[in-house]
Amino acid sequence: MKTSRHVSPVLPAATDRLAVQPLGLDAVTIRSGVWADWQRDNRAVTTPHSFHWLERDGTVDNLRRLDPSGSGRPERRGPWFTDSDLYKALEAVAWDLGREDSPELAELVGDISDIIRRAQAPDGYINSFVQAGMDVRWDNLVKSHELYCIGHLIQAGIAHRRSTGRSELFDIAVAAADVVVADFGDGRRSDTDGHEEIEMALVELYRETGNRTYLDLAQQLVDVRGYRTLDTTNFGDSPYYQDATPVREETTVVGHAVRAIYLLAGVVDIAIETGEEALLSAAITQWESMTATKTYLNGAVGSRFIGEAFGDPYELPPDLAYGETCATIGNIMVSWRLLLLTGESRFADAIERALYNLFAASTAVDRKGFFYNNPAQRRTALEAAPTNTRPDRADAPGTRPAWFECACCPPNIMRTIASLGAYVSTATGTAVQLHQFLPVSIETELNAGAVRLEVDTRYPLDGFIDVTVQETMGSEWALEFRVPEWAGRPELTINGISSGYSITEKGYARVSRVWVPGDVITFIVPMEPRLTVAHPAVDAVRGAVAIERGPVVYAFESVDQDPIVDLNHVELLRDPVMTEHIREDFLGQASALITVRGRARQDAQWRDTGWKRLEEAPPSDGTEVELTAIPYALWANRGPSVMRIFIPLEASPA
Amino acid sequence: MKTSRHVSPVLPAATDRLAVQPLGLDAVTIRSGVWADWQRDNRAVTTPHSFHWLERDGTVDNLRRLDPSGSGRPERRGPWFTDSDLYKALEAVAWDLGREDSPELAELVGDISDIIRRAQAPDGYINSFVQAGMDVRWDNLVKSHELYCIGHLIQAGIAHRRSTGRSELFDIAVAAADVVVADFGDGRRSDTDGHEEIEMALVELYRETGNRTYLDLAQQLVDVRGYRTLDTTNFGDSPYYQDATPVREETTVVGHAVRAIYLLAGVVDIAIETGEEALLSAAITQWESMTATKTYLNGAVGSRFIGEAFGDPYELPPDLAYGETCATIGNIMVSWRLLLLTGESRFADAIERALYNLFAASTAVDRKGFFYNNPAQRRTALEAAPTNTRPDRADAPGTRPAWFECACCPPNIMRTIASLGAYVSTATGTAVQLHQFLPVSIETELNAGAVRLEVDTRYPLDGFIDVTVQETMGSEWALEFRVPEWAGRPELTINGISSGYSITEKGYARVSRVWVPGDVITFIVPMEPRLTVAHPAVDAVRGAVAIERGPVVYAFESVDQDPIVDLNHVELLRDPVMTEHIREDFLGQASALITVRGRARQDAQWRDTGWKRLEEAPPSDGTEVELTAIPYALWANRGPSVMRIFIPLEASPA
Repeated sequence: MKTSRHVSPVLPAATDRLAVQPLGLDAVTIRSGVWADWQRDNRAVTTPHSFHWLERDGTVDNLRRLDPSGSGRPERRGPWFTDSDLYKALEAVAWDLGREDSPELAELVGDISDIIRRAQAPDGYINSFVQAGMDVRWDNLVKSHELYCIGHLIQAGIAHRRSTGRSELFDIAVAAADVVVADFGDGRRSDTDGHEEIEMALVELYRETGNRTYLDLAQQLVDVRGYRTLDTTNFGDSPYYQDATPVREETTVVGHAVRAIYLLAGVVDIAIETGEEALLSAAITQWESMTATKTYLNGAVGSRFIGEAFGDPYELPPDLAYGETCATIGNIMVSWRLLLLTGESRFADAIERALYNLFAASTAVDRKGFFYNNPAQRRTALEAAPTNTRPDRADAPGTRPAWFECACCPPNIMRTIASLGAYVSTATGTAVQLHQFLPVSIETELNAGAVRLEVDTRYPLDGFIDVTVQETMGSEWALEFRVPEWAGRPELTINGISSGYSITEKGYARVSRVWVPGDVITFIVPMEPRLTVAHPAVDAVRGAVAIERGPVVYAFESVDQDPIVDLNHVELLRDPVMTEHIREDFLGQASALITVRGRARQDAQWRDTGWKRLEEAPPSDGTEVELTAIPYALWANRGPSVMRIFIPLEASPA
Repeated sequence: MKTSRHVSPVLPAATDRLAVQPLGLDAVTIRSGVWADWQRDNRAVTTPHSFHWLERDGTVDNLRRLDPSGSGRPERRGPWFTDSDLYKALEAVAWDLGREDSPELAELVGDISDIIRRAQAPDGYINSFVQAGMDVRWDNLVKSHELYCIGHLIQAGIAHRRSTGRSELFDIAVAAADVVVADFGDGRRSDTDGHEEIEMALVELYRETGNRTYLDLAQQLVDVRGYRTLDTTNFGDSPYYQDATPVREETTVVGHAVRAIYLLAGVVDIAIETGEEALLSAAITQWESMTATKTYLNGAVGSRFIGEAFGDPYELPPDLAYGETCATIGNIMVSWRLLLLTGESRFADAIERALYNLFAASTAVDRKGFFYNNPAQRRTALEAAPTNTRPDRADAPGTRPAWFECACCPPNIMRTIASLGAYVSTATGTAVQLHQFLPVSIETELNAGAVRLEVDTRYPLDGFIDVTVQETMGSEWALEFRVPEWAGRPELTINGISSGYSITEKGYARVSRVWVPGDVITFIVPMEPRLTVAHPAVDAVRGAVAIERGPVVYAFESVDQDPIVDLNHVELLRDPVMTEHIREDFLGQASALITVRGRARQDAQWRDTGWKRLEEAPPSDGTEVELTAIPYALWANRGPSVMRIFIPLEASPA
């Protein structure tokens, strides 16, 4: 039933259009390290935590009460789209079952599937908000999230089928999808959902079933967008919904960030399957604009609180950054699809930046707290999040809340972690690509037969990535390591002996041989800390630098600093020297901390004023101090704090 | 009936606590220049425009329909607090009648007063939202704005009485105030309005009537705040409502900016009348924190879109500035009260910065368009505002909309302009203070008798302020000119002969003499353009400068630039030389434009990336160009544009 490379969220049918073929959870196992620990905790800690909250907030009850045989259930609770929170959590559990079986989790999926099936209308339609009588089917699509929710149901059903071969959840999802097809397909309706998501779900359903109707509908739902036909009476404007410009004409990402990015993922999915150049080229143009002009160093996308939206190019002020977790997860989705299609390292670079920084920062090290939006700078230590209730507002408090009324992010994190192995490696007939450097086992079939590899690495603690060939056939094949954009030219050894390698035009270090079992290929990425500056049009961090080391963006958190340091009044000295300090257990993770000389500014001559004449601006005054930087991902795990990523650099003398 | 110095929005009863006594509209007449033109247009253009919209949006009808004899009126429309929009417009007309009589405007006030009186409940209560059956009296104070609206009614009634001596609107207001006293006074209720405003209205009503009950209630409404008792279920948190910290313990301004500032104005009013040191000192501490750490160069206060709120200290990114017009008007109110109390020039400086920049920018030069929030930078030219409809959203579009659903700002602008003469000058028994330099006539009584002055000036086009003594008594008195904080040491001549002067500890240039009619005192403020830098903790404009000239903040608007210039990719050359160009008619105003050498950057090496290693950051590339700066207040009057105030300064060589 299960075949190799078939347990993955994205399995294009048009494999001949792909530069590289995905390796799924059945082919790639994360064996150890931080991400394996997180996968373990995702199952053991986050999953029960999430289902506790999904019960506590009535999300499951919202469906239970629709069971025709049920009675006495409480009123429906929460936002319109709570169904999707449950579906995403279910998808997470489904991927986790693909990773490793569990009778308890299998039972959980069975039970919830049963609840969904009983809630479903006779024709397959399902939406707990509409079915509770709070709206009319398809009547208010801009707000209702009906297609969005069904999209997540489809993805959960596919995940469960791919992971376990079982069809009960999948069949429920197909029935729902078929209602959408019946009502919208072949242009029977010309409207669409205010929140994109179903597009990529329908393409994946086409891939899973071979039924082209789903692909056609996905295409239709993309094509109707961009003509200002979505009703903007209640909230949002046309750009908010990506409805101001047709996607083929759009040159950047606009509006609500998660919507824009989910649309982009669906667009790439369609382009993969249809081969339409115009669609693909628009998608790449938008991705490039997003990456070069609308992405924070920490991987945040979507700078504006208002509308959770993309701002203008270079509008990236850290002190008012929004940075929704779901948007960065969406960027991982888009970039992965573009990576499959093109094989270009820049897409894997974007995934790496997202994963090691904003995505990792979204979740508390105890894996029971989450940021919905992710600060890139915090000037004052806010109150800690309550631990036994959830806050009403999504705005990030001093620590990560346990849950949210709008609970989109935590289950999105869960499903990403549970399926993370699917984003690590790909293959062609004659090569295996390593896009992310994790300690994994890889089993795949190349043209000439089976290959089994083990990757051992403490990356990004250090830059050594050892690949041991454990099984190989007798013919030549290649190993291709992504050369990260920050890495210069890494070293490579084979069985301890320095080896040359070519760099492919896609940006990968390639060594090709007739390997024998026991061969060890070591890719050595330089991991010295570096100082990074932003594009000169990013006004908000001009004259400031950030520390990066490998893929890790660093932050200065108040808890690590000398008591005389106020991180709002601080600068690095010119030509700062950075010193690494390896800590084997920093908040449960082996981490490199970095110290650097700086100045705790007094700003004494500025006490009463916010501005001065240029010629009267005083030079920096204050005390030289050692400042400590930690991986940004780990901030706010020790109580409320002040934090910054970019830090002013002492000005050169005029 | 009218006595000198009694036509003013703020007339403290405890005159002996004031450092300087207000001179009202009966004492100060703006004779010519931009502000006189605006007053003329405020009456001739903005007033009919506003009443057109107040009718079109149902604001007047919301009250008409409550007339017991009326019938067939449409349903109530608009936000809860629409009554206040009408009251503020009415207050504006009332001040305008004080400035210059008009049978038509007198009739307008009479008609609207009649509508309000008929709408009023038998006991005097009035709120069109509650009386429409949409809420229960005082039941939902955090949202309902009932006290807020009655506060504005009180201020309108007082304005009308002070301006005209008539009492019909005043009596309506007193009846409403007495319902508040009956229900809330003497601690009968312990709650208060979610939006402060009534505090300063009640204090002014105490001043107008001598009835201390109103003052006591104002104090009570301030004292109940700060204990997290306001219901935050619907929206906002306790800091949003200034309910997290009692005002005497608060050290900065927090939460919704207009609310925080209106509270502050009420607090100063109470402190003036009660003499309570703790209250006054808390107010001054908050004002200082606001001025030094939470005010934009253009006079904007309240940086955050979310909650229209104050941010953290130094959180002042221009590209995400909110800057509500009403908040800056509130700052003028607070600063004026503190100026009366202390006589210190810093408060008049703050008023000047607000008036000449954000306040002036809020209104189109045709006086029929308004910004609700005021951009401090615009990276892309947004669509123009519709001209025949009003936008649903308050966010500033490419040009100034004609009106808003939440129409608080336009009538607030109107009442400020109509009463502007009251913010120009004050007196003590032996001196006249000039706080703002406008061409005005001043008539007042000093200890020894009547004084009449004429001020002639084109300020801020140039820095010459001529004061001609037209009438004086035979004894010595002083003229005190504010020395603006940016002015260094101005020159002073008497009858053309250079004269020494003392600078008072309050920051005023003082000359005291036995003047004779015909004496001309000229105060000469240097008006060279200057480059201004922000406090080093304002991350968002580090390495950038702004041009100021006198009180005027400059902006670069795309429409004035060479076609090769993209204002998002530009910098000034080191040691930039600025050149003034006087334009006698620039958008209807005599203005100084400024040109400066800069560079249109190509940023060619940055095309694909948002960040680089510090050592790999390329030097600026591009073409040297002449850049043109205009007064910020005049931007967006020539169609949608790109605009910036702060502009990067070429970095010194490392």
